Amino acid sequence: MGDQKSKVLIIGGTGHIGKFIVEASAKLGHPTFALVRETTVSSNPERSKIIHSFKSYGVNLIYGDVHNHEDLVKAIKQVDVVISTVGVELMAEQHKIISAIKEAGNVKRFLPSEFGGDVDLSQVVEPAKDYVELKRKIRRAVEAEGIPYTFIVSNGFAEYFLAGLGQLNAKVPPRDKVVILGDGNTRVILLAEEDIATYTIKTVDDPRTMNKTLYMRPPANVLTFNEIVALWEKKIGKTLDKIYITEEELLKNIQEAPSPLNFILAINHNAFVKGNFDVVVPLGVEACQLYPEVKYTTVDKYLDQFV
Amino acid sequence: MGDQKSKVLIIGGTGHIGKFIVEASAKLGHPTFALVRETTVSSNPERSKIIHSFKSYGVNLIYGDVHNHEDLVKAIKQVDVVISTVGVELMAEQHKIISAIKEAGNVKRFLPSEFGGDVDLSQVVEPAKDYVELKRKIRRAVEAEGIPYTFIVSNGFAEYFLAGLGQLNAKVPPRDKVVILGDGNTRVILLAEEDIATYTIKTVDDPRTMNKTLYMRPPANVLTFNEIVALWEKKIGKTLDKIYITEEELLKNIQEAPSPLNFILAINHNAFVKGNFDVVVPLGVEACQLYPEVKYTTVDKYLDQFV
Repeated sequence: MGDQKSKVLIIGGTGHIGKFIVEASAKLGHPTFALVRETTVSSNPERSKIIHSFKSYGVNLIYGDVHNHEDLVKAIKQVDVVISTVGVELMAEQHKIISAIKEAGNVKRFLPSEFGGDVDLSQVVEPAKDYVELKRKIRRAVEAEGIPYTFIVSNGFAEYFLAGLGQLNAKVPPRDKVVILGDGNTRVILLAEEDIATYTIKTVDDPRTMNKTLYMRPPANVLTFNEIVALWEKKIGKTLDKIYITEEELLKNIQEAPSPLNFILAINHNAFVKGNFDVVVPLGVEACQLYPEVKYTTVDKYLDQFV
Repeated sequence: MGDQKSKVLIIGGTGHIGKFIVEASAKLGHPTFALVRETTVSSNPERSKIIHSFKSYGVNLIYGDVHNHEDLVKAIKQVDVVISTVGVELMAEQHKIISAIKEAGNVKRFLPSEFGGDVDLSQVVEPAKDYVELKRKIRRAVEAEGIPYTFIVSNGFAEYFLAGLGQLNAKVPPRDKVVILGDGNTRVILLAEEDIATYTIKTVDDPRTMNKTLYMRPPANVLTFNEIVALWEKKIGKTLDKIYITEEELLKNIQEAPSPLNFILAINHNAFVKGNFDVVVPLGVEACQLYPEVKYTTVDKYLDQFV
């Protein structure tokens, strides 16, 4: 391939983060493909608009469906990199993407749909636990199949968690009172969707992120919720009333809330109380990989001395 | 320095893992120094023997005490690398080592006393929780001071966890019955002390492990406890009686046991039930470090759009 940029297929490109990633891929010079359902194009005005914008960036639309194995294999065979940005409802279906990648046999990198906290280090409670567990199983399946991967831990979307200052249903920050989950001293890492997309695309041809987790931790964005509120207060020159919800109350709310509110609250609990958007990341390396010349004692051999 | 091997000071060198590390350092060609208390040499026959063996490998003994700041600074100024292998009783005193390293100003790498599971990902219960928390605080202090470091996650010592097959007070594997904590399906990673020492010394001049956690996961040694027992049974051609202790029973035992048995049980619970000797290691890289050219949107700037 030389210096040529890899061809990228995005599956789930009309979703919240997907559209940013499609745009970043095209703008950073990758031949970019988006798998879209024909029904989406015709039936959903908002998504039609997104697809229209894709055309303006020169994105190649591939009509097809994740549930159709042949569609998938055919689409994947045209590219080097597959990025899944599917949402909750298609999360489990990524096993189908994995099968198609295996059959196609040409994929140089696969990024499964993650774009949140580290699912391996999550402390999320039900009903979101099953969902996180699903992402974890996708990781294990990708590893087990030997598909070259990068797992993207992008932490929190700014539009979801920052624009409304974490308030339910808010799209702009509050100006009178703010509800704070826990004591507000948990650190959260929040990124603009455009930045998440840029980092994601930067990584697809980068050998340094091959078979690794890419953590996004912009230093200026590692803040406690209290610090974020203080930033906002300073900007508007006004102190907000603060209502603290203890973890105990929040857990009770999660159990009593109807769906999907209980799911959102569980995600917020994980982010703002448990700190899943700021796991202490072990930037680790592994001894046997670094020093294969060391002939270590196996457990099997070690036990021989006692026989 | 060129190809010259760095000078290594071991603090706590007469301890369980320390003596192996002193030996590995000397044998791998590092000018090796061990800080020892004069009282240790004269009063403790076992440790005197260890110190005698150090002399036979050409180790330079430095008489001094961790509690004496001037002793420490003077010792540290003679070397490039400091490895702490202090035990439980001196764990908190490592803040003194950190201060001395700061004052000395010449240290190219510091390895605080770890040599267990990953303390950042530990699920250990009391009374061992405080101890693990202490190691975690030492990590944060080292990072905060900007001291170049490597954190060593060596998982389980073979002498402690494998020689006696995890049975309390046993130094050889049992031949009739074996107590299994939990269901025995948790994976544990156990290494011979000599191998831990070799990997540890290999890492001190390796730029790839600078400011990273080094995980030791020899593939042949990633086994469930049940698998280890089966290995042993095959070797002696005999099936052992198996007594399973549920997590609930074990937690109750921990609460009721006297010290230090409760501490040991808590460590065993963390290792054999919670799986702290086999955390799913995110071999991670960080986006801003890899792509400093991306000018990301800070939280501060992001909020400006709403003012």
